[in-house]
Amino acid sequence: MGHKTAQQADKEGWLSSGDSSGTSGDVLPSIFSRKPRDFSLPSSSWGEEMMRLYNYYNSQSEEATEGQEDHGEQWTRLPSYNRSLKYATGGVYLSKIIQSKARLFTRNIRDPGAAFEYVVFSRQDKQRCVCVFQAGHLLEGPPGHVHGGAIATMIDTVTGTHASLLSAPVMTANLNINYRRPIPLGSTVLIESTLDKEEGKKKFILCSVTSTDGSRVHTEATALFVSVSVSHLLRG
Amino acid sequence: MGHKTAQQADKEGWLSSGDSSGTSGDVLPSIFSRKPRDFSLPSSSWGEEMMRLYNYYNSQSEEATEGQEDHGEQWTRLPSYNRSLKYATGGVYLSKIIQSKARLFTRNIRDPGAAFEYVVFSRQDKQRCVCVFQAGHLLEGPPGHVHGGAIATMIDTVTGTHASLLSAPVMTANLNINYRRPIPLGSTVLIESTLDKEEGKKKFILCSVTSTDGSRVHTEATALFVSVSVSHLLRG
Repeated sequence: MGHKTAQQADKEGWLSSGDSSGTSGDVLPSIFSRKPRDFSLPSSSWGEEMMRLYNYYNSQSEEATEGQEDHGEQWTRLPSYNRSLKYATGGVYLSKIIQSKARLFTRNIRDPGAAFEYVVFSRQDKQRCVCVFQAGHLLEGPPGHVHGGAIATMIDTVTGTHASLLSAPVMTANLNINYRRPIPLGSTVLIESTLDKEEGKKKFILCSVTSTDGSRVHTEATALFVSVSVSHLLRG
Repeated sequence: MGHKTAQQADKEGWLSSGDSSGTSGDVLPSIFSRKPRDFSLPSSSWGEEMMRLYNYYNSQSEEATEGQEDHGEQWTRLPSYNRSLKYATGGVYLSKIIQSKARLFTRNIRDPGAAFEYVVFSRQDKQRCVCVFQAGHLLEGPPGHVHGGAIATMIDTVTGTHASLLSAPVMTANLNINYRRPIPLGSTVLIESTLDKEEGKKKFILCSVTSTDGSRVHTEATALFVSVSVSHLLRG
């Protein structure tokens, strides 16, 4: 069997650290009696700037600003897991997912802070998403700087998450990325995704990667996503 | 200190398995008395198709086809490491690299076969490169398929390696990627990079990702690279 036991997964940090009690017994029931780890919650590897921005957007959430008239600037944190849990609705698909060793590319490294640390917030009106991204030392491309592919990966992730909010599931059809200034390893940047237009099954999205104060543009991109059916993907 | 000892690195598979002898003593000398692992050489995780193509391009190498008139179709395997060894020419830069925990994004996962398994060959005339890429289970995006960001990463890697052959070092300025068909996790594909034109410091490159027999196009892309100075990057 390809899958890990719950104990192994827990030891490797895949499960939520706040929920490590419970009996082991059979593998499948014990996996489902535990919460998978939500990687969009703070960890000790998050730096000061990452925490500051996380707290800022969290403070702009629905609960915190209940009395306000304008709901446009309310932000909701989106949870993030290392496997396709949201498609696990039962039957043959669920069983495929349980048996699979497959893990989401951006959440596949166990060492906290070593690779992609990020959290995505969506605005109430779904016209924008924002991501706070801290780039770890395992993402190197040019000496001391983030790999162009790792930047592309975050752009695909944030714009794809945004497109999925409008109508899941989607597939990336095009990414057009302009790299303006390199991003130093270890730094925290802001990735903003703005809906440009929707045409039938197509969603056109604009994206920028900037310094956290917005003064320096690192990367600019456009992204196109197309809605697909899940069963089509899982059939293979 | 942030760096690993040679023993740690060896245990974690970072060093060449064929060269694990030697005394330990001081950390720095022992690192340099050993060969770093060349990830472009076959491992037990490489599947049949990966090995078949590796052997094919290797058989078209300079040594194997010495008697031929046309050198255009001779291919050279390019070695691949998990850190920026080629810039390690001494002094303050070398010392920065030794102390750094930074690792190349595409070579940062220890579990063989789990992520990016690939080897790049360049043609004698440097007008083309070809990469055989086997996509591991930790590269998931859509259920059962390779993440768009992982595909972008390989396109950046192959076209960037190609541009570097013409004049290193380079930085990615633009990637424009059209995703045509998803790539199933576990499959082996061919990534081809063709020089379109050079204009001063700019190199324009075309790239395609296809099934190994060329019959199915998965991804098509254009890439633009600009020559930079290394010292500029290492200064930060």
